[in-house]
Amino acid sequence: MNIENLSRNKSFGGWHKQYSHHSETLNCDMRFAIYLPPQAANGNKVPALYWLSGLTCTDENFMQKAAAHQMAAELGVAIIAPDTSPRGDDVADDEAYDLGKGAGFYVNATQAPWNRHYRMYDYVLNELPNLIESVFPVSDKRSIFGHSMGGHGALVLAMRNPGRYQSVSAFSPISNPIDCPWGKKAFTAYLGEDTASWAEYDSSLLMKKASQFVPALVDQGEADNFLVEQLKPEALEAAAKESGYPLTLNRHEGYDHSYYFIASFIGEHLHFHAKHLNK
Amino acid sequence: MNIENLSRNKSFGGWHKQYSHHSETLNCDMRFAIYLPPQAANGNKVPALYWLSGLTCTDENFMQKAAAHQMAAELGVAIIAPDTSPRGDDVADDEAYDLGKGAGFYVNATQAPWNRHYRMYDYVLNELPNLIESVFPVSDKRSIFGHSMGGHGALVLAMRNPGRYQSVSAFSPISNPIDCPWGKKAFTAYLGEDTASWAEYDSSLLMKKASQFVPALVDQGEADNFLVEQLKPEALEAAAKESGYPLTLNRHEGYDHSYYFIASFIGEHLHFHAKHLNK
Repeated sequence: MNIENLSRNKSFGGWHKQYSHHSETLNCDMRFAIYLPPQAANGNKVPALYWLSGLTCTDENFMQKAAAHQMAAELGVAIIAPDTSPRGDDVADDEAYDLGKGAGFYVNATQAPWNRHYRMYDYVLNELPNLIESVFPVSDKRSIFGHSMGGHGALVLAMRNPGRYQSVSAFSPISNPIDCPWGKKAFTAYLGEDTASWAEYDSSLLMKKASQFVPALVDQGEADNFLVEQLKPEALEAAAKESGYPLTLNRHEGYDHSYYFIASFIGEHLHFHAKHLNK
Repeated sequence: MNIENLSRNKSFGGWHKQYSHHSETLNCDMRFAIYLPPQAANGNKVPALYWLSGLTCTDENFMQKAAAHQMAAELGVAIIAPDTSPRGDDVADDEAYDLGKGAGFYVNATQAPWNRHYRMYDYVLNELPNLIESVFPVSDKRSIFGHSMGGHGALVLAMRNPGRYQSVSAFSPISNPIDCPWGKKAFTAYLGEDTASWAEYDSSLLMKKASQFVPALVDQGEADNFLVEQLKPEALEAAAKESGYPLTLNRHEGYDHSYYFIASFIGEHLHFHAKHLNK
């Protein structure tokens, strides 16, 4: 594996590091960040928590703003934050913030021009963990979480691959993308007009028909500007009820869509995942 | 007082808010941020901790990256983060990152063109706390802290005004600006070639001759790229020894100049200040 270290910062006794590598899946160079807790210092393997960010983000937003390192250091969990789309000059893009770079939606695109690079689903599911587990003192015990578009990605990846993940959680996820403007726009571009193929990327549809369960936690702010039109947690809640899915969904008065909300509840998410990762 | 609310985010049960106001001292409009802990919700007055940021920063860096809200909420302390210089189209500037906008150095400039607006010392010492204490449920119990250029500012403000502050702390402060490239450049521009006037803005010189003490805490990373050339904590340490100043200065192996370092030790700083604010 050929990876290049770009930066390193000591943080709560562990290390935050950024790396660049060539992704075969995405057909471009990619950057990711990893937080290695102090417990990993002597080559001891620690479990892995994958964070998927929202629209316009990179690997940096979570690491800088989520205030997650302290608890990850206490719990002995590594956190890996990939970028939110393929990158580079020859990667297709769109002027809008919600399509193209920074907006990969964690799908495998089937439509030109997107299908040359936009395969974030496969990248996060296979290539990235294979790389992480071969290079770092990180075990194959994995959980996954994310925010907004990344909350959608985390839920979809966990529900479609229950054997790969111990637990899943999301802040303010796009819960029913086939029925909201962000999702319809992205899925039309990446997956095409035929909505049949969209179903495998919609966490509410997946949860409704699920028979294998991954413990799931969702937190949603009630003062979130995107709540009604884009996020639709009520669809996820109804789906969980139908299939008996082990979903805990909490609503929080006054909280918005920002990282201030994420930071306020990140400790609970890290505890939730650590409990399942250490089983 | 005419102030305008620009944003609000609920955070750990309290509120992060940004405001704009016209500063008479600086002769321009200014933005600041305040974190109000839950204890301030019913108009109960809470003590105030002023944060001064480093070069290139605004009111946002600390609030987004320092992971300070959780502990401030627990301790019941408000945090106020001003900008790092006057702002606006008619404010003198320089192309360099270390002079002009984003680089006010918390001095009262005496030299043209800087003396029209650059009076950050008076702004932070008087106008801003007067505004805060008249508008918010914040008491006149004040402490002050900061990072790098802001660590310099916090130390100078506290040592020159021991009656105004209960305690002072700094991460990686520019400890001896009259003897480092950043300080010499800024002081030459703002205060002029005559170095006699520089002494009142040098925390090592102030500490050496101090007779009234404010409890002081400094943390410094040993992997900080600016340590040897710009920061010079050894000058502060020697000064404290000479005057018997109550300075605690900790060095930390492996930590750099970033907010990852600040976040790692912010809890200790908040506890230190809360102890003195609640006396």
